[in-house]
Amino acid sequence: MTTEATTPDEFWRNPHAPVADRVRDLIARMTPQEKIAQLQGIWVGIDAAGEMAPHQHEFAVAPQDFDKLTANGIGQLTRVFGTRPVAPEVGVHTLARTQRQVIESSRFGIPAVVHEECLTGLAAWQATVFPAPLSWGATFDPDLVRRMAAKIGESMRRIGIHQGLAPVLDVARDLRWGRIEETIGEDPHLVGTIASAYVAGLESAGIVSTLKHFAGYSASRAGRNHAPVSIGPRELADVILPPFEMALKAGARSVMNSYADNDGVPAASDPTLLTTKLREEYGFTGTVVADYFSVAFLHKLHGVAADREDAARLALTAGIDVELPTVDCFGDPLLEGIDAGRVDLALIDRALERVLAQKIELGLLDPGYSPVGDAGVDLDDDESRAIAREVAESSIVLLQNDGVLPLSGKRLAVIGPRADEAGAMMGCYSFPLHVGVHYPDVEMGIEVPTVLEALSADHEVVFARGCPVTGGTDDEIAEAVQTARQADVAVLVLGDHAGLFGRGTSGEGCDASDLNLPGRQEELLEAVLGTGMPVVLVLLSGRPYDLSRQADRLAAVVSGFYAGEEGAAAIAGVLSGRVNPSGRLPISFPGAGSTQPSTYLTAKLGTRSEVSNVDPTPLYPFGHGLSYHPATWTTVGSEEREWPTDGVCRVHVVLRNELETATTEVVQLYLHDPVAEVARPVRLLVGAVKVHLEPGQTRTVTAELHADLTSYTGRSGRRQVDTGDVELHVGTSSANIHTALRLTLTGERREVGFDRVMSPVFEIR
Amino acid sequence: MTTEATTPDEFWRNPHAPVADRVRDLIARMTPQEKIAQLQGIWVGIDAAGEMAPHQHEFAVAPQDFDKLTANGIGQLTRVFGTRPVAPEVGVHTLARTQRQVIESSRFGIPAVVHEECLTGLAAWQATVFPAPLSWGATFDPDLVRRMAAKIGESMRRIGIHQGLAPVLDVARDLRWGRIEETIGEDPHLVGTIASAYVAGLESAGIVSTLKHFAGYSASRAGRNHAPVSIGPRELADVILPPFEMALKAGARSVMNSYADNDGVPAASDPTLLTTKLREEYGFTGTVVADYFSVAFLHKLHGVAADREDAARLALTAGIDVELPTVDCFGDPLLEGIDAGRVDLALIDRALERVLAQKIELGLLDPGYSPVGDAGVDLDDDESRAIAREVAESSIVLLQNDGVLPLSGKRLAVIGPRADEAGAMMGCYSFPLHVGVHYPDVEMGIEVPTVLEALSADHEVVFARGCPVTGGTDDEIAEAVQTARQADVAVLVLGDHAGLFGRGTSGEGCDASDLNLPGRQEELLEAVLGTGMPVVLVLLSGRPYDLSRQADRLAAVVSGFYAGEEGAAAIAGVLSGRVNPSGRLPISFPGAGSTQPSTYLTAKLGTRSEVSNVDPTPLYPFGHGLSYHPATWTTVGSEEREWPTDGVCRVHVVLRNELETATTEVVQLYLHDPVAEVARPVRLLVGAVKVHLEPGQTRTVTAELHADLTSYTGRSGRRQVDTGDVELHVGTSSANIHTALRLTLTGERREVGFDRVMSPVFEIR
Repeated sequence: MTTEATTPDEFWRNPHAPVADRVRDLIARMTPQEKIAQLQGIWVGIDAAGEMAPHQHEFAVAPQDFDKLTANGIGQLTRVFGTRPVAPEVGVHTLARTQRQVIESSRFGIPAVVHEECLTGLAAWQATVFPAPLSWGATFDPDLVRRMAAKIGESMRRIGIHQGLAPVLDVARDLRWGRIEETIGEDPHLVGTIASAYVAGLESAGIVSTLKHFAGYSASRAGRNHAPVSIGPRELADVILPPFEMALKAGARSVMNSYADNDGVPAASDPTLLTTKLREEYGFTGTVVADYFSVAFLHKLHGVAADREDAARLALTAGIDVELPTVDCFGDPLLEGIDAGRVDLALIDRALERVLAQKIELGLLDPGYSPVGDAGVDLDDDESRAIAREVAESSIVLLQNDGVLPLSGKRLAVIGPRADEAGAMMGCYSFPLHVGVHYPDVEMGIEVPTVLEALSADHEVVFARGCPVTGGTDDEIAEAVQTARQADVAVLVLGDHAGLFGRGTSGEGCDASDLNLPGRQEELLEAVLGTGMPVVLVLLSGRPYDLSRQADRLAAVVSGFYAGEEGAAAIAGVLSGRVNPSGRLPISFPGAGSTQPSTYLTAKLGTRSEVSNVDPTPLYPFGHGLSYHPATWTTVGSEEREWPTDGVCRVHVVLRNELETATTEVVQLYLHDPVAEVARPVRLLVGAVKVHLEPGQTRTVTAELHADLTSYTGRSGRRQVDTGDVELHVGTSSANIHTALRLTLTGERREVGFDRVMSPVFEIR
Repeated sequence: MTTEATTPDEFWRNPHAPVADRVRDLIARMTPQEKIAQLQGIWVGIDAAGEMAPHQHEFAVAPQDFDKLTANGIGQLTRVFGTRPVAPEVGVHTLARTQRQVIESSRFGIPAVVHEECLTGLAAWQATVFPAPLSWGATFDPDLVRRMAAKIGESMRRIGIHQGLAPVLDVARDLRWGRIEETIGEDPHLVGTIASAYVAGLESAGIVSTLKHFAGYSASRAGRNHAPVSIGPRELADVILPPFEMALKAGARSVMNSYADNDGVPAASDPTLLTTKLREEYGFTGTVVADYFSVAFLHKLHGVAADREDAARLALTAGIDVELPTVDCFGDPLLEGIDAGRVDLALIDRALERVLAQKIELGLLDPGYSPVGDAGVDLDDDESRAIAREVAESSIVLLQNDGVLPLSGKRLAVIGPRADEAGAMMGCYSFPLHVGVHYPDVEMGIEVPTVLEALSADHEVVFARGCPVTGGTDDEIAEAVQTARQADVAVLVLGDHAGLFGRGTSGEGCDASDLNLPGRQEELLEAVLGTGMPVVLVLLSGRPYDLSRQADRLAAVVSGFYAGEEGAAAIAGVLSGRVNPSGRLPISFPGAGSTQPSTYLTAKLGTRSEVSNVDPTPLYPFGHGLSYHPATWTTVGSEEREWPTDGVCRVHVVLRNELETATTEVVQLYLHDPVAEVARPVRLLVGAVKVHLEPGQTRTVTAELHADLTSYTGRSGRRQVDTGDVELHVGTSSANIHTALRLTLTGERREVGFDRVMSPVFEIR
């Protein structure tokens, strides 16, 4: 460690000096204690915050220990707003006071990076609950998601937060996994595109976006949370990693590790993943933060570390820079390892350089930095609600409709456990469900209308719950049937209760044994179907469920996932016809007798075949979604027949709106590669674009696709663009292809890497 | 290609010359047509044999084409006995005539290798149906399995067969897979030990044993047959490959590829697997034969070959030597590729050398070779039946018993679709179920008593079917309940109907969507339980089913898997007490709410944890099985505390039989490695031994365990023996550990390979 830049005493505070020089200067002045303090988070008061996570109590920090733990400084403050219901103005004051303590109690006075969860908007009391990620995916509208994230980021920045722990880039692999609701869907291109938009939005507000969970977590065995992942390098490279590559290119400055092990190696101890891939191949220079408690889990749960010091050493060696949520292995155990010479100080300095560089980039070390946020902020202002509404409306998916929708002038029986429940609109990372549930006496803090309330505005309605999400009685179901008979149409609002670790039917730690609707909801649905009246099913859920036994008897099916605080209005809008549904499925709904894991992204033998009696064909496929006013596809074509392996081809789609109402279409482009070195997916999304059409309007969508989009990991283990024939399947879902265009890749076979083109360029005229 | 040994005109026929020289001499004389003919199988008359396999008709060979197809010789004859019900004497004559045709029609007069299926005994009409592989696993008795296989091999050899397509070494990974019944179980050590014994037995009779399916097949996604396999190199090396390594050391001379792709690469096109691993690392010199139609599937199903020629080239390049079951890609397409210079003749010669060397070793090219078998053979002689009985009796597993068993003097109501059904005793590769089902007018050809018949010999019985395996009526269930009420105890005999490709509830292509008992059998069970009378469940199935909803109300549960033609007698023997149950589970039974895939062989996070609400704890764990006369475990210990990484440790178990009846115990040794470079299984079987104890007898079991047994694939990707602490868990099942012995591996960390020690040495005094 050189100390050449130490002459001016506070050189490292010089905002005009190069960041690297400032970092070097500062590191040279620090003791080992001061160094490791910068690699630690601290979570104050978690002990009092109820059981939010397993093993949480083992790591609790009492407020009275705060001074001692920050005497040498501290790297991060964990969830100052997101741990208890605190009003924004209280949170802003608390944070400012805490930061001042951090600054004043240590020799260098370095403020902490403050991080919060923000997967469905900032997870804080009185903050807007935006739609959950499956809804972002369903919009197929990256620009809208970018605007949402920019607004979220702006609110966070105003109150003194620096880093947000979102988005989740895990590609859904098994619908039973509880965290399916946190994913954007089952397709890497869609996940990467939408997540990149989120990253760009959040970062545009100056908030450090954190990519979760690097990498492999969603493929845990049988969808059990944290379970071992059976995966090979090709599936990792072609399915799991591309969204991270896209989001890094979009400017994400932090990455969080996966909890699980891949083929035996926990991500938190895997230098191949966290250093070779992330740093050397992708050129990432930001910070890698540990998923909560995951450093300790190397010792406690994975059995790859002998003790906490060993866990710290392994994590640092792999490439984890900051232990979250609170100091444990990176505290005394690590210091003992350093003192005893068992842990190389160079490992500490490597992580420290990244942490300090980020703090400098954030301006935390500049003279005049103030930790005081805007105490007058409204975290649920009109603009937030408007964006939440827009995302919600864009995300509702009409799965089937025999003409019963839109409902106009009908008397409705609104039935089901999710009909009059604000929580039905929210994912497990929303503040009310993540934290608020532990404070039953505290108000929710935001207005969240229910579907019943929203429908009541436009319709004559009667209501019966029928059953809770889980449990229930025969009597209540019978009563609901009687209520239903009073109306023209029954609207059944069924689905999940999102929650954490056994407190929900979906959410982190709430994995499913099967894909039947939770509790007695299928019975309730059957009972109402038994009346013979038209039944509209509105599903508000964290994962697709098996609707195959009822689908052909349902008048209509609408999927809302968790559409956020404005979700009910959006659903009522779709049901009433005020909103033309334009959402498309980011994830398939399972077909009769199908099994998990299964997604649309599979080689031919993963689809229906003569060699297995189990048919994985989905009921509603990836990309599916109906419109009240479908556009007319006039032509689909390409002027090219040849596609240079280092060049582009252009595909044209001409859409016409022949109706009297404006409408929206999602044009989807899939790649089909008939012969390759390895078994490739039957279809693979390579691009999609949402097109708005005024009445009578004709528009031409041109997609310019670089041949890099055909690349895959070949037999060599490297990514390549082959020569030869491929097909572009252009259509309205992964199972509804309007035209298959055959093209021949010509020229030289190429190897491509991180800098390849990963998205088409769309032009809409 | 050198031709130095060509001087004597028929040098290659000289039985005293070295095999390699004879091979070289012969190859030098052959035209490309003659060469590739040796790499082909031919399956005559399959067209008339009903639909045994998907895609079969596309490859059918009419008898009239035989001469043309064998004009240049032929490598193999496919299932001369196993395609239609032919009496052994007819088969022997047919085979001799066919071989004479093969010999006479071609220039060199080389006989074909004749192969048959032999997974539950020779799959031929009138041949003994032995227990299926799960039952072999349940015996935990390799010597018994070796004797069985030797007897099977002897019968095969006598009638002119050279090669048997068994055993299956796939380690069970997902209970939903239809071919679970063909596996030996879910533990690599048990599978490898029992399979090695089978190989040694079959090979001792001169029959070429064929290891199926190399490798990865059992891990197909969601247990769907042929579906893509998500797997990394470590899981492949530590779970899937060890049984093959053991069986190769036991002398297997042929290997058959897996149908599926591993991480995108179909095994049939994978040189890493079929050449680098198998030939270079394991030193295998025998033949690799294609699983039926799998060469063509590279083109038709996997999309890794452009056409049939390309498929042939890929398969040969990977290391497949013989196309089975009948000539397709290895015929004209391959010849065209050779003629056009697109396929290197060296690839042909490489495969040909192996095929010819094996034919020479089998004596087929020796002067005086006669293809005429023993037409007087009895394929179901007394000795076969006696061994079948012995295996069956050793394999029955008593899963629970409240004391109702043994049944003595009780009036029994025998209920259930499997109670009076001979087919209930047989797996899908038994001749009656594999082939016989297509000939409903032909007698089964062997005596197979049913459980009802066997119980009737010792007990007063009434019988009702209750329901078929699938389907059924309320009336029949109600009638069964009425019948049950007439007796003291109800014996419910439930389970699977084994069959192929949708014609069964278990078997090849008959995958399960869930693990509920097929059809209405659970309803039937509940109905009889509703009487309140003691209910004994006898499960005859190809896979474990979920019995968790009834287990605590059942008086006793007995698992018989498919115990073969003498299975009913064995089951009746156990129920009556004549046979003390000594089988142990080679595969876990699922617990309530558990999900698939899941086996006992998992790292800690694959077991019950705080981070998932889905509990994978099995109802009956791997290794579990009760005895009527349990032995007393007096001491378990080791004199060592240190275990050299290149040496052995010895574990002693002293068992005493304190009862008046002889008994049997299975001592099981599991490895627990608390800290390793990768997440290791919580417990891993490293040895097991079945111990017989006379009344009053005390015996000492000594297991000598080489440190190689602790080896695993480390971070480097190579197999290593670490220093440091491990535990040996000694007990009666994977979940019932009597003593955990802590040992410290000392010395140097070692890398080990194929030549490592893979089994303990047991001494029983």
